[in-house]
Amino acid sequence: MAKLRAVLIGATGLAGQQFIAALKDHPHIELTGLAASPRSAGKAYAEALRASNGMTAWFVPEALPESIAKMKVVSGEEVQAKDYDIAFSAVESDVAKEVEPRLAKDIPVFSAASAFRYEADVPLLIPPVNAAHAPLVREQQKRRGWKGFIVPIPNCTTTGMAITLAPLAERFGIKSVLMTSLQAMSGAGRSPGVIGLDILDNVIPFIPKEEEKVQVETKKILGSLEGGAIAPHDVRVSCTCTRVAVMEGHTESVFVSLSRKASVQEVVSAMREWRGAEVSRNLPSAPPRWIEVLDDPFRPQPRLDRDTHGGMATTVGRVREDSVLENGFKFLLVSHNTKMGAAKGAILVAELMRAQGLLG
Amino acid sequence: MAKLRAVLIGATGLAGQQFIAALKDHPHIELTGLAASPRSAGKAYAEALRASNGMTAWFVPEALPESIAKMKVVSGEEVQAKDYDIAFSAVESDVAKEVEPRLAKDIPVFSAASAFRYEADVPLLIPPVNAAHAPLVREQQKRRGWKGFIVPIPNCTTTGMAITLAPLAERFGIKSVLMTSLQAMSGAGRSPGVIGLDILDNVIPFIPKEEEKVQVETKKILGSLEGGAIAPHDVRVSCTCTRVAVMEGHTESVFVSLSRKASVQEVVSAMREWRGAEVSRNLPSAPPRWIEVLDDPFRPQPRLDRDTHGGMATTVGRVREDSVLENGFKFLLVSHNTKMGAAKGAILVAELMRAQGLLG
Amino acid sequence: MAKLRAVLIGATGLAGQQFIAALKDHPHIELTGLAASPRSAGKAYAEALRASNGMTAWFVPEALPESIAKMKVVSGEEVQAKDYDIAFSAVESDVAKEVEPRLAKDIPVFSAASAFRYEADVPLLIPPVNAAHAPLVREQQKRRGWKGFIVPIPNCTTTGMAITLAPLAERFGIKSVLMTSLQAMSGAGRSPGVIGLDILDNVIPFIPKEEEKVQVETKKILGSLEGGAIAPHDVRVSCTCTRVAVMEGHTESVFVSLSRKASVQEVVSAMREWRGAEVSRNLPSAPPRWIEVLDDPFRPQPRLDRDTHGGMATTVGRVREDSVLENGFKFLLVSHNTKMGAAKGAILVAELMRAQGLLG
Amino acid sequence: MAKLRAVLIGATGLAGQQFIAALKDHPHIELTGLAASPRSAGKAYAEALRASNGMTAWFVPEALPESIAKMKVVSGEEVQAKDYDIAFSAVESDVAKEVEPRLAKDIPVFSAASAFRYEADVPLLIPPVNAAHAPLVREQQKRRGWKGFIVPIPNCTTTGMAITLAPLAERFGIKSVLMTSLQAMSGAGRSPGVIGLDILDNVIPFIPKEEEKVQVETKKILGSLEGGAIAPHDVRVSCTCTRVAVMEGHTESVFVSLSRKASVQEVVSAMREWRGAEVSRNLPSAPPRWIEVLDDPFRPQPRLDRDTHGGMATTVGRVREDSVLENGFKFLLVSHNTKMGAAKGAILVAELMRAQGLLG
Repeated sequence: MAKLRAVLIGATGLAGQQFIAALKDHPHIELTGLAASPRSAGKAYAEALRASNGMTAWFVPEALPESIAKMKVVSGEEVQAKDYDIAFSAVESDVAKEVEPRLAKDIPVFSAASAFRYEADVPLLIPPVNAAHAPLVREQQKRRGWKGFIVPIPNCTTTGMAITLAPLAERFGIKSVLMTSLQAMSGAGRSPGVIGLDILDNVIPFIPKEEEKVQVETKKILGSLEGGAIAPHDVRVSCTCTRVAVMEGHTESVFVSLSRKASVQEVVSAMREWRGAEVSRNLPSAPPRWIEVLDDPFRPQPRLDRDTHGGMATTVGRVREDSVLENGFKFLLVSHNTKMGAAKGAILVAELMRAQGLLG
Repeated sequence: MAKLRAVLIGATGLAGQQFIAALKDHPHIELTGLAASPRSAGKAYAEALRASNGMTAWFVPEALPESIAKMKVVSGEEVQAKDYDIAFSAVESDVAKEVEPRLAKDIPVFSAASAFRYEADVPLLIPPVNAAHAPLVREQQKRRGWKGFIVPIPNCTTTGMAITLAPLAERFGIKSVLMTSLQAMSGAGRSPGVIGLDILDNVIPFIPKEEEKVQVETKKILGSLEGGAIAPHDVRVSCTCTRVAVMEGHTESVFVSLSRKASVQEVVSAMREWRGAEVSRNLPSAPPRWIEVLDDPFRPQPRLDRDTHGGMATTVGRVREDSVLENGFKFLLVSHNTKMGAAKGAILVAELMRAQGLLG
Repeated sequence: MAKLRAVLIGATGLAGQQFIAALKDHPHIELTGLAASPRSAGKAYAEALRASNGMTAWFVPEALPESIAKMKVVSGEEVQAKDYDIAFSAVESDVAKEVEPRLAKDIPVFSAASAFRYEADVPLLIPPVNAAHAPLVREQQKRRGWKGFIVPIPNCTTTGMAITLAPLAERFGIKSVLMTSLQAMSGAGRSPGVIGLDILDNVIPFIPKEEEKVQVETKKILGSLEGGAIAPHDVRVSCTCTRVAVMEGHTESVFVSLSRKASVQEVVSAMREWRGAEVSRNLPSAPPRWIEVLDDPFRPQPRLDRDTHGGMATTVGRVREDSVLENGFKFLLVSHNTKMGAAKGAILVAELMRAQGLLG
Repeated sequence: MAKLRAVLIGATGLAGQQFIAALKDHPHIELTGLAASPRSAGKAYAEALRASNGMTAWFVPEALPESIAKMKVVSGEEVQAKDYDIAFSAVESDVAKEVEPRLAKDIPVFSAASAFRYEADVPLLIPPVNAAHAPLVREQQKRRGWKGFIVPIPNCTTTGMAITLAPLAERFGIKSVLMTSLQAMSGAGRSPGVIGLDILDNVIPFIPKEEEKVQVETKKILGSLEGGAIAPHDVRVSCTCTRVAVMEGHTESVFVSLSRKASVQEVVSAMREWRGAEVSRNLPSAPPRWIEVLDDPFRPQPRLDRDTHGGMATTVGRVREDSVLENGFKFLLVSHNTKMGAAKGAILVAELMRAQGLLG
């Protein structure tokens, strides 16, 4: 079977680079187009990355594939949907609002941008958690008269928490969650992202709009698709999001109230035994387990655990009873914000929908 | 009036050095004795700090006072209580268990160690919050047959939170608290403390025994002295304590449930208007305000705010409603763990009890 | 005697804020005007610092003086020289090229920008080192037909090294210098300055144009004023400049070849005994000693030593013989790049020229 | 051909763990014995790593191999040389002085410790640079009456510099080197290594004994084996070694004086074309190139470049003429201090001597 021809919008930024690294040697998807701002258009990709000061602005640890380095970059506005089977979008939200609908008229668009996350006919997918929401794109296509569709992935801070809550919601039910995040700098990108002078020997206690995103998205992801719309889960979610001097990997301190009594051992088992939606299990980018619960009380740590299973697993530790909430438990998790929480997470969604036969 | 002659136990360690810096030019207290391990005994203090590799192990930013540098260090075991009016203790908990009671037979001992914090006849004092608990030392003296007493200060992570909860408890009542801390490295000391290889680009999600301390101490501090004993406050407290790559200043993300409805503005006003126990207000080490609520949503930050009012104020920001807890609010605080949370906090207690006439 | 009325150009940036902090309560200078970009014009200074996201962009540790907070900011283009006695300039080099000459027609301009550093009729002043160059401004005034003049300060990396070389050049003569710098992030400012993702767990081995600046400026500063022009010192200078994850304080590893034999003790004494130009010694911002040589082999360290004497002293350590260069010595120095190396250094120059009677 | 049976002395420390990670799936060597302190003896290796606080003290990023986890640890004193073909030593220098000679009576010992580096009959090997020194072990065996021998690897700071100097020495000759290092924390190990409080927002300008090691070792490594002894190279070496807040990868700023004129292009070509000793080229741990010269002026950076070719290549950048030294050039290098500079470097030496037929 031929590989899907994919175009990447926003190819030169940090998020775009993560898509390029993650799509190298992909069994089902081939990157055949790269789009960026008009400033880069017409240049070979490696050339577009070269800054005026001589620096090569390739920021991910994986090497830039030779074939991509030579590929000519086109302007986002000039991308022709007919040349591709699918599109990945790594642009900022305001650009996404223009370019994603234009492409979605003809082809599926998998997006890391927040622009369409909160639309009623747009699913917000984490394959093991809510693969069942994917068919909402049919409704989207019908309503908007599109042949393609837009499927965004959640905010990177939502992803790890939603994954750990899913097995608890399934086995015990969940009533409320209070979460404090200690987020990595990579989540803020590089334009300019987090300034060194601000974060060294420091914590920044506010990430604009982040808390609202996590609160709304968690309820949508854990919700159910009924009658062509998603009914949000009635879990109450409250969080405080902070930034710390960590390169990659969000750490989250979670307090959760279950709907019924459980023991620590049962909570741990629920996470350990969870395999997620069946259709998600053997996708090319799927890890052997979505959640790894660690016994060492000093884990998870972002530097040691973010790359577990290629950055696609959420690591959990210190599962304990909480004395305040009803049927309360508390734990910490680490989730790789630019792997499972960004490019690789979007690719996983494309893999899912291909497996579900929803791309056609 | 003559100054109180004070001996410092554990003078060469990081905590001891903080006492020395904080007692420089103190209006009521004069450091007239320095005690450390037998290895240092007999040496001038500056000499005792000199390591075999030539390094001068003076770690606080303030300069080492000339008079202290020349003072001869004695072994902790040889300290004679009769030569002093009070003692400050900066030793580890296991040493504290031996040396503090010996001195307390004759003189008051103000301690940063946890050894006696949980004894029924020992008050755990934060002057603006619970100056009223101080007379419990009379009970302690009676029971133990001592002329002096032991008063420890709380764990440094407890202090900032207890201070911010006090005005809420007084004005609205509080029912429960869920807290996640992002603690500075200085709290772990230097023996070896936090290793650079462990904390750079990382978060450590566990600080042994810390969470239990905060939970028990908060209830004791906010409790009431009745019939010669402290009845703990019935607030339920649950926390998760983590370590981040910050030099000084603990950041805490607090979710609190009040006993009655309130607005954000009322909560902020309660903190801003709070002056604490009257007797604590004009102590030499007291800041102009115990709590500073900041309007900038990006504050408090440990590096920018830890030194507010000489490290004696707790800074608060991002006071918001919380949608999960009943009458819930959430905010962040920064508290200087080695000033208000350690040496200067213990000195403040000595100042308090002097003002209360309890030293005699 | 009335204070000098000073206007500050570039008042809202990080460098401008450092001028404001340094001029608070200055005995001879009063900040009576603040200029910034047209975007800030017409606003009160505190208002101009408030970002759209609610953040107050005041970045120096000292508090923003109340009187400055309320002062109205004008656009740089609208500043009228006649309203002031002197100007301080904290703008970028390209802006400096426009605004500094316009003001210099009428009043002295003391600048942290590099725009005019390399002009033949412009002295580059470090008061203790080359106060004797200051009268070159008379030549500048004559040539350009100005009533005022422009005097820039050196690059922050040049300053500490030139100060330590001065006593060696005076006492022994110097033939060549090889230096590697480990520079703080604050030298790069905040627009965007050094990105956290680039510097954490890392070293950046290149700072564009920095090495050339240090090489040229050192020779000019150590040169002599002869016949209305500065003859550069014939010392050969070569350096490699790197950036490290330090907030403030440049560390420099220096290898120097003297013109004649000397012992380590003589080199140390030369630095310790050096008092610099007599006219510079009692200036309000002058430290008690320009150089502090430390005996502890683990010093100087930027975090511990950058603030020595208010950030106006250069600290030196590890003075040793070097076996490669002729009469070779090596040592390390720490210099505060945004105090002596920036705003306070420029203010010191204004103080110097006032003392020299060159402002009139 | 059967694999060599290797015992690892010092198996539980950080250096020992690096040997374990590096020997996983090695084609010629099998780890069949693990030795540590008596405290660990008798325990399974994974058990020996478990600290009393529940932490698993496995610090390298690679997973602990299952077979090693179960292997029983013996006390270093009880290791029987007859059970092994070779030994790797990752112990501290004082322990090395006892245990290494005892084993060397019977089998070759490859050591990361400094204990025997400076003995006249002991070669200090970097395979591509001085494979020709290896036969010196025959002299060592003769003199000491051993069947085995001891071969240490150089200090991790020496390695990268010696590798970059080798092609210059071969093609142009070298007269002198001045180097300033910016060293990673991992070089100091974990007992306690570099304390977080000392290194954050800081540089430590002194690493005891390091500079002397680099100076002596570089001359020995670049020397020549003549008449059963190594005549040191007559290059003069002077350095200043500092510690920075970097996890892994030493950065070194090098100034070198060549024996004859050359252009930057010739210097770069000399490094790029260098393949090292022929016998070293196809060893299992050898990288495709020992030196990678990067064109981007912002490279090499330790975080981006330390892992080049599995941490076995030295990356070089910013090769420029130096105006001070005769035929002077300057450049920066990054070398992985715990891969090529430690365990993997020692394994490479074992591979070399096996290929040279010197193990028998």
